[in-house]
Formats: sequence, structure tokens, C-alpha cells
Amino acid sequence: MNDFKSIGVVHSPFKVSVGMPIQPVFAEGAEGTVEVLPQYADGLRDLEGFERIWLIYWLHKAPPGPLRVIPFRDTTERGVFATRAPCRPNAIGLSCVCLLAIAGNVLTIGGMDILDGTPLLDIKPYVPKFDAFTNSRAGWCDRSPVTSRTHADDRFAQ
Amino acid sequence: MNDFKSIGVVHSPFKVSVGMPIQPVFAEGAEGTVEVLPQYADGLRDLEGFERIWLIYWLHKAPPGPLRVIPFRDTTERGVFATRAPCRPNAIGLSCVCLLAIAGNVLTIGGMDILDGTPLLDIKPYVPKFDAFTNSRAGWCDRSPVTSRTHADDRFAQ
Repeated sequence: MNDFKSIGVVHSPFKVSVGMPIQPVFAEGAEGTVEVLPQYADGLRDLEGFERIWLIYWLHKAPPGPLRVIPFRDTTERGVFATRAPCRPNAIGLSCVCLLAIAGNVLTIGGMDILDGTPLLDIKPYVPKFDAFTNSRAGWCDRSPVTSRTHADDRFAQ
Repeated sequence: MNDFKSIGVVHSPFKVSVGMPIQPVFAEGAEGTVEVLPQYADGLRDLEGFERIWLIYWLHKAPPGPLRVIPFRDTTERGVFATRAPCRPNAIGLSCVCLLAIAGNVLTIGGMDILDGTPLLDIKPYVPKFDAFTNSRAGWCDRSPVTSRTHADDRFAQ
């Protein structure tokens, strides 16, 4: 397998996963920054017109877990690939965050749902034509019995 | 950096990148399969209710590239992180594909925009509440001068 490398680091108000928003959509008011390594800063050009970006990152604090988990917003065990749980065979995180500002190699981010110190793997622009499918059926999520849970408890914590 | 591993392989009609759809939204009628390694098959439970899934994969044929590229749907050089181009510091691909069927450890996929033989890193469910932001501003993509281009040419080919 290819040797992926950190291209930067996430600075976030969240030092532990317990109590952290489980998705950007539940992280209103939670801001942070993404500090891209200087040698990659030139790749950030033209990002400023995008309202949202995808951050792809290493869930570096997620412990290994089983292939079935009870997701935060459910009461039933589900296959891990049918969930966004952090404990997965490859600990890769995906967040659609708000891009608030760019200054040099530092992006200011809204909707922060990522742990402080997280190594960044990639940034991609959010393009509605490619990414927005409002009415897509979403299996157990469409019948979620725990819609009030928006922040993490300790079930996946180290 | 963590040592990510292949959890499966993509089987696709596309043996070379030239002529391949550049996003699932341009890949109507292009079907393929994702063969998950048997040891991870149990993690696929409960995926069947999802209309779309995210595939995260290693762009294993993408050669290293510069930090500025002319994207398929543009005529101007852009920072690579403001594009979905395959040549990026970490060659990680992200596709929102249609989940058509599941049989054991094999998923049938519609909207296939991935090269045959591509190593799979992760599968996540597509959840509109987390992922669909229809009116999100999309920078240069909103003014794309090349909206007719939906399939790859040779600019990023090996």
C-alpha cells in the first residue's frame, strides 16, 4: 500500500473525543484551523471561492474496533461500513467543513468536528454537482431513533 | 503516519484513465463491483438501505504531479486542493457512487468513475444530512468554462 503522509495538522478546540460534535452539521460555532505544511501551501490557491471543503484525515486517536458497532445515533449494532464511526479498518475521517478564511498556509474552519492535533491527508473542494444528493435514501439513518444525540459519548474513546 | 491497508478492490470497465468519467455524476450507465476482502465482509451489514455510498481509495495509477494543475473542466491553472484532480500529494480518491446491490462481500456499483484494480481504503454511507449542501458556493467550478467535458483526457495519465 502507498505510504500516505501528513500534509498538515488540524487545530481544534476539542482535545478529547468525548463531547465532540459527531459531524460538522452539529458543530455550529465550533471553529478551528487547518495548518498546511508550507511546502504544500501553493496547492491552496483558488480555494477561497469555495464555501465548503472536504477534509480527509487520519483518525489517529481512534482505537481498533470490531466490524459491528452501535453508532452514536442508533441503539442497534450495525456493520461499521454502514456507519461513520471512527473505529474502522482504515482509520480515515471525512468531514465536510465550512471554509471561513485563508491566510497563507492556514485555513479557518467552521463546523469543526475533528480532534486537535489530527494529521491531515487531503483537502478537496465541495462541489454540489458532485456531492449533494439531498433525497438519497439513507438506510437506518432515515429511521434513527436517537436524533437528539449530536455529540460523542465515550463508546469509541481510547 | 499510519499504515493504511487495502480492504478490497474495485472491478470496473475502465482499464485506463483516458476516457473515464471524471465523477460518478457523469458515469450514468457505468457499472462495476467492489469486492471487499472476506475478513471485512461482516462490516457491510446494514449498507443495503443506502442509495449511495462514499468510496475512499488509493489512486494507485496517478503519477506524482505539481501543486498547480489545469482541471478537466477549466482552462486555468488552479491549486490542486481546489480541484478533484487525481495527482495530489496523497493520492486519495473520493467517489459518491450508487449502491445497486449487495451479494456477500461484493457490492454492485453504479456511477463508476474508478479505474479497474483500484485498492479500496474505506466505505462510508452517504447521509444527506451530513453530506448534501445543494447551494454551497463552489468557486471556479460555478463559472466553469468547460461544462461539456465529462470524461478524462490524458492530462493526468501516466
